Amino acid sequence: MSEPAAAIDFYFEFSSPYGYIASQVAEDLEARIGRRLRWRPILLGPIFKITGQAPLTNIPLKGDYAKRDFARTARMHGVQYRHPDDFPIGTVAGCRAFYATDERDRRAARALAKALYRAYFVDNRNIGDAATMLRVAAETGLDAAALGLAIDDPGLKARVKGEVDAAIAAGVFGSPFFIADGEPFWGVDRIPMLEDWVRKGGW
Amino acid sequence: MSEPAAAIDFYFEFSSPYGYIASQVAEDLEARIGRRLRWRPILLGPIFKITGQAPLTNIPLKGDYAKRDFARTARMHGVQYRHPDDFPIGTVAGCRAFYATDERDRRAARALAKALYRAYFVDNRNIGDAATMLRVAAETGLDAAALGLAIDDPGLKARVKGEVDAAIAAGVFGSPFFIADGEPFWGVDRIPMLEDWVRKGGW
Repeated sequence: MSEPAAAIDFYFEFSSPYGYIASQVAEDLEARIGRRLRWRPILLGPIFKITGQAPLTNIPLKGDYAKRDFARTARMHGVQYRHPDDFPIGTVAGCRAFYATDERDRRAARALAKALYRAYFVDNRNIGDAATMLRVAAETGLDAAALGLAIDDPGLKARVKGEVDAAIAAGVFGSPFFIADGEPFWGVDRIPMLEDWVRKGGW
Repeated sequence: MSEPAAAIDFYFEFSSPYGYIASQVAEDLEARIGRRLRWRPILLGPIFKITGQAPLTNIPLKGDYAKRDFARTARMHGVQYRHPDDFPIGTVAGCRAFYATDERDRRAARALAKALYRAYFVDNRNIGDAATMLRVAAETGLDAAALGLAIDDPGLKARVKGEVDAAIAAGVFGSPFFIADGEPFWGVDRIPMLEDWVRKGGW
């Protein structure tokens, strides 16, 4: 077929260590498979209400494993990682800032996402705080004052809620979560499987 | 060092699809890395009471993903898979039969584990039923009558409880779960990471 292949949806939550690691390797993935990722931040809070799940680090036994695994998975991918002092955090402000930016400039939105993730998981800055989030946005060249207004706009808030609802409708329950040609892949450790699936058209 | 490397602990639950898949690829893994796996069936029921987790297929959103993923992960590894009609099941009888056999014949216990898994995940036989489990054991050449008595022995029951308690103490919260040189790896999808870790002595 001569039509370009559809984008692969890449869902992530800004408070998710594995989402952060995925964001750092996502562009290499795009280059390897020749497919564009559509970056879609989401909020795990409303999703966990549906699934009854809790943040990984709060779960007995699994929490200790998770903290060890965040760091070693980052090392495996050559990604810097410092577990944030405040964890997990609410990331609705960052999520809104992403979509407010994405509506006008997809490239700038992606740069914002990467900067927010690095601010949180490398520089230990609490991006759950709206003022801190806006300072990080300004450092990427965005107009923080305009963005501060934009994220309070009711239409934008509804748009973000709609994104989360759409993710839930698509079956998204974790971060990172990829959907390629209708096939779901959960976790940064499933990137090799996603890649093989996309190359072969399933199996 | 001239001492042989310590065995890698391989924990699994007989009702776990990913544990089944791991059991089917475990001997290839041993051959590739030149390390012996110590097979240790466990029971996720008491573990889930501690972690507050539920069987995967009972979790909203995650359950649908899991059912799809069991089958495609099996296909990826070239392993037969038929999702059992009765799922999940209690597997304490199989677990006891394994350890009763393992005390005298490690090789026979491993053959029993593989046969129980195939009976459940290929032939749709409910190995949660003790009589069915003993029939499968007999098909591997074991003395079903003797095994039926052995699994009711209070000493053996205590041994199995001790195995589960030891697994919990070691941080095991899922199936399959590997511990190599003190480092934990959860999931059949983490076998490549385990392999890399063992080859390099960590990173």
